[in-house]
Amino acid sequence: MNYSMIAYILGWVTGLQGVLMIPSVIAGLIFREPAVWSLAGTAALCLVLGAPVLFKKPKEQVMYAREGFVIVGLSWLVLSVLGCLPFVFAGAIPSFIDALFETVSGFTTTGASILENVEAMPKCLLFWRSFTHWIGGMGVLVFLLTILPMAGGTHMNLMKAESPGPSVEKLLPRVSETAKILYLMYLGLTIVEIILLLLGHLPLFDALCLSFGTAGTGGFGVRNDSVASYGSYAQWVITIFMLLFGVNFSIYFLLLHKRVKQALSSEELHGYAIIVGAAILFIFLQLVLSGTGGKHPLLEASFQVASIITTTGYSTVDFNQWPAFSRTILVTLMLVGACAGSTGGGFKVSRALLFFKSIRRQLFFFLHPTGVRRVTLDGHAMDRQTMRAVTSFAASYMAILIASVLLVSLEGYSETTNLTAVIACFNNIGPGLDLVGPAANFHFFNPFTKLVLIFDMLAGRLEIFPLLLLFYPRTWRRH
Amino acid sequence: MNYSMIAYILGWVTGLQGVLMIPSVIAGLIFREPAVWSLAGTAALCLVLGAPVLFKKPKEQVMYAREGFVIVGLSWLVLSVLGCLPFVFAGAIPSFIDALFETVSGFTTTGASILENVEAMPKCLLFWRSFTHWIGGMGVLVFLLTILPMAGGTHMNLMKAESPGPSVEKLLPRVSETAKILYLMYLGLTIVEIILLLLGHLPLFDALCLSFGTAGTGGFGVRNDSVASYGSYAQWVITIFMLLFGVNFSIYFLLLHKRVKQALSSEELHGYAIIVGAAILFIFLQLVLSGTGGKHPLLEASFQVASIITTTGYSTVDFNQWPAFSRTILVTLMLVGACAGSTGGGFKVSRALLFFKSIRRQLFFFLHPTGVRRVTLDGHAMDRQTMRAVTSFAASYMAILIASVLLVSLEGYSETTNLTAVIACFNNIGPGLDLVGPAANFHFFNPFTKLVLIFDMLAGRLEIFPLLLLFYPRTWRRH
Repeated sequence: MNYSMIAYILGWVTGLQGVLMIPSVIAGLIFREPAVWSLAGTAALCLVLGAPVLFKKPKEQVMYAREGFVIVGLSWLVLSVLGCLPFVFAGAIPSFIDALFETVSGFTTTGASILENVEAMPKCLLFWRSFTHWIGGMGVLVFLLTILPMAGGTHMNLMKAESPGPSVEKLLPRVSETAKILYLMYLGLTIVEIILLLLGHLPLFDALCLSFGTAGTGGFGVRNDSVASYGSYAQWVITIFMLLFGVNFSIYFLLLHKRVKQALSSEELHGYAIIVGAAILFIFLQLVLSGTGGKHPLLEASFQVASIITTTGYSTVDFNQWPAFSRTILVTLMLVGACAGSTGGGFKVSRALLFFKSIRRQLFFFLHPTGVRRVTLDGHAMDRQTMRAVTSFAASYMAILIASVLLVSLEGYSETTNLTAVIACFNNIGPGLDLVGPAANFHFFNPFTKLVLIFDMLAGRLEIFPLLLLFYPRTWRRH
Repeated sequence: MNYSMIAYILGWVTGLQGVLMIPSVIAGLIFREPAVWSLAGTAALCLVLGAPVLFKKPKEQVMYAREGFVIVGLSWLVLSVLGCLPFVFAGAIPSFIDALFETVSGFTTTGASILENVEAMPKCLLFWRSFTHWIGGMGVLVFLLTILPMAGGTHMNLMKAESPGPSVEKLLPRVSETAKILYLMYLGLTIVEIILLLLGHLPLFDALCLSFGTAGTGGFGVRNDSVASYGSYAQWVITIFMLLFGVNFSIYFLLLHKRVKQALSSEELHGYAIIVGAAILFIFLQLVLSGTGGKHPLLEASFQVASIITTTGYSTVDFNQWPAFSRTILVTLMLVGACAGSTGGGFKVSRALLFFKSIRRQLFFFLHPTGVRRVTLDGHAMDRQTMRAVTSFAASYMAILIASVLLVSLEGYSETTNLTAVIACFNNIGPGLDLVGPAANFHFFNPFTKLVLIFDMLAGRLEIFPLLLLFYPRTWRRH
C-alpha cells in the first residue's frame, strides 16, 4: 500500500475543500452574515491542514486499484467531517451527528435533511449546503484529476472508484482530459439552467442553489416547501434539467462531437426514457382519475418522477398523500435510479438492464444447456467480469439494504418509514414515504439510526465497494 | 417438442390426482359429510380424464430439459384447476377464483387462505386442503417418478424442474430410487410427527392435518386460531418438525447411511442454524425486554421463527402486534426461506450464501484484478453455470417481486400489506403483516389481485423458471 501517495492526495483533497468554500464565504460577505466566519475559519483550517503535504510529492507515485479505492473512501470521509464544521461552528446545527448527516447528505447528493426550518438558516450556509451537491455530483477526485498532474495508471483507478455505474468509459485517451471535458459539460449545463431560472424571475441566490441541487441530483432546497412555491415555468425547467442530469454524460460528449446517431442508440437511454415516460403516464392517469392531483397534474407527475428516478429529491407536492399505486411506482423508481455515468444515484438503469437481461439468457440456457449466449448492451457482448460485478453489486446492495432496515427498525417506526428512509438515503434520493415523506425530515431519528443512514448515503454514492474495501482486512495486508 | 410425451405424463398426473383424493373421500365417509360426494365426483372425473392416455404409451419417449419444464409447469396448473373443484362443487368456496387461490396455496405449500372461518368447513374438505400441502411439499412429479417406469434422462429433467434449490443432488445412481428414498424419508418423518402429536392427546384428525401442513411446510390449520389453542407440548413438537422439514433432505440421507460427519459439515446447515438461532435470540430478547411476549416468550419466538423461515406459516401469536424490529426480522426470514432440497420455499439459504459470497470474491478482485478466486460451497468450487443461475434467479426474483407489488398496489392498501402479501405468497409462507397478518386472511383482495398472487405462489414453488418458460416464445418453437 502506497501510504505516502494516499496522504498526498488526501492533502490535496483537504486543501481543495478549503478553496471550494470560497464562493460560500463570498455569499456570506454579500449577505453580511456573521456565519461567514465559521465558513472562512473552516476554509482556513482546510488549507492549513492540506498545505504541508503539497510540498513533498512522493517519489513512488505508482498506485494500484487498491490505493484508488482507499483514497476515494477516505477522501469522502475527510470531506464530510471537515465540510460539516461550518454548521457546527456557526451554531446553525449544534449537534455534530446532525451536521455530519446534513453534509454527507449534501456531498453524496442525497438531499435528506435534518433541518426543520430551512429558511431560518444563514444564507451563506444554505449556499454551502447546496454547493456540496454540486461538488459531490461529479466527484471531488474527478475534479482533482483535472488540475493535478499524476502518473499513468493512477488517474484511471481514482476515476473508476468514484464514478457511478458498472463501467467507466474513457471519453478521451487521457484520463485528465476526460475529467476536464466531463466537468466542462457539467458546468455548461449548470450555467444554462441558472440562466433559464433567472429568465423566470427567480432571485439569483435561489437560481444558483436550485441549479447546484439539480446538477448534482441532490435535492436541498432553500425554502421550506422545497420547489412547490416557485411558478410552473421554473418547475418545468427544473424537471427537464433533473432528467438531463440523470443521463450518462458520454451521451452529451457524443452529441458535442455530432455523433447524434450513436448517442441516440444507447440502450440505457431508451430504457431510461421508457421508464420515465411510463411512470409519468401511469401517475398522471391515476392523479386525474382519482382526483388527487392538483391544478397541474401532468407537471406534478413529471416533476416527481424526474426528481425520484434521477435521485434528486426536490418535491412540489406531498406525494406521501398520493394513492398507493403511484406511491409504489415512486418506490420502484427509487430502486432503479438514474443512468450510469450521470450524477444520479441508485442501482442504475444500465445495471438493471444487464441484471434483467440475464433472465432471458437463463431461459435460453434451460432450453439449450450447451448453447452459447452472452448478455449484450448496445450490441457489445458483456464479459464475465462485468456480469460478475453486476451480480456482486446486486448482492451487496441487497445485503446493505436488509441490514440497514433491520438496524433502523430498532427505533420502532413503521415498515414504510424504515424501508423508504433506507432506500432514500442508500440511493441518494432524499425523501421517502410516511414519516420521512417530502413534507417531513430526518430530524426525529436517534443518533445511531443517523449513523446507519450516513453509512448508507456514502455507500450509495461510492457504489458500495470503495467503502466496503475499507473494512476488508485484505485491503490493508502487505503483499 | 415431444407433445405426446407431455400429454402422456399430464394424463398420469391427472389420474394420480384422482387416486390421491381417496384418503379425503374416506375421511368424508367416516365423518358422514355430504361434501364427500364433491370429492368422490372430482376423483372420478380425474380418473376418467387421465385414463385414456395411460393405454397409449408414446413410442418416442426421449425428453429434453424443455419438455421437463413444460410438463412441470402444466402439471401444476392442471393439478390446481382440478384440485379446487371439490371446494366449488360442495359450495364450500363458491367463487372459482377463491377456490383456485386456496388450492394453489395448498399445493404450493403457501398456506395463505381466503377462508374467514376455517372451522365451518366440512372436515373432509379440510383434510383434502391439508393433504394438498403434503402432496405439494415433495412434489407430485417426484412422486410419479417413484411409480412410473421411464426412459433414461427423462427422470432427471423432471426432477430438476420440480425440486427446489440451485442444484439437485442425485442421492442414488437411479433417479427413480432417489425419488423413492426421498418420499420414504418424507413419509417417515411425517409419521413420527403424527405419533408425537397423538402422544400429546391431539385428536387424530388434527394430528394428521397439522402434520401434513408441517411436512409440506404449508401452514393450513384446522382451527381459526391456527396452532395457538394447542398446548405448548404440541407447539414445541411442531416447532421442531417445521425446522426439520426445512433442512435439505440429503442431510437425512447421509445420516441414514451413518455419514454423520459429512452431514453435519454442510455449510447450508450451518447458515440455517445460525440464522434461526440469531433470529430466535433477538426476538426473544425484544419480547422479554419490551414486555410484548406472552407466557412463553421463548416458545413464541421459536415457533414463529421456525414457521416463517421454513415458509410454513402456522402461528401461535399475532406477530403483527410485535415491535418493529421483531417484525422486520420476520420479513427478512421470509425473504431467505428454507434450505435447498427441503420442502420449504423462498430464496433458499444456499442460494443466499452463494449470492453473498460473491461480495467477498468481488472485493478480492478489486484488489487483485488478475487474480483467480471462485465461490465455494462445502469446499466445492462453484462452476460458472451455477453462479449464473443464482444471478438470473435473483434477477427474476426481484423482477417478479417488484411487478407483483406494483399490480397489488392498484387496490390501494398500505405498502406493508402489499409488500408482505406478495412476499408471503411468492415465498410460499402464508401470512404477512398488516391486513394480511396471521390473524387475518386474503379474502378481501379483488379477483385480479388474487390471480397475481396465484401466479406468485406457483412461481415461488416452481422456482420461477418452469413457469416463465411457458411464456417464453422460444420454448414452443420447433428446432
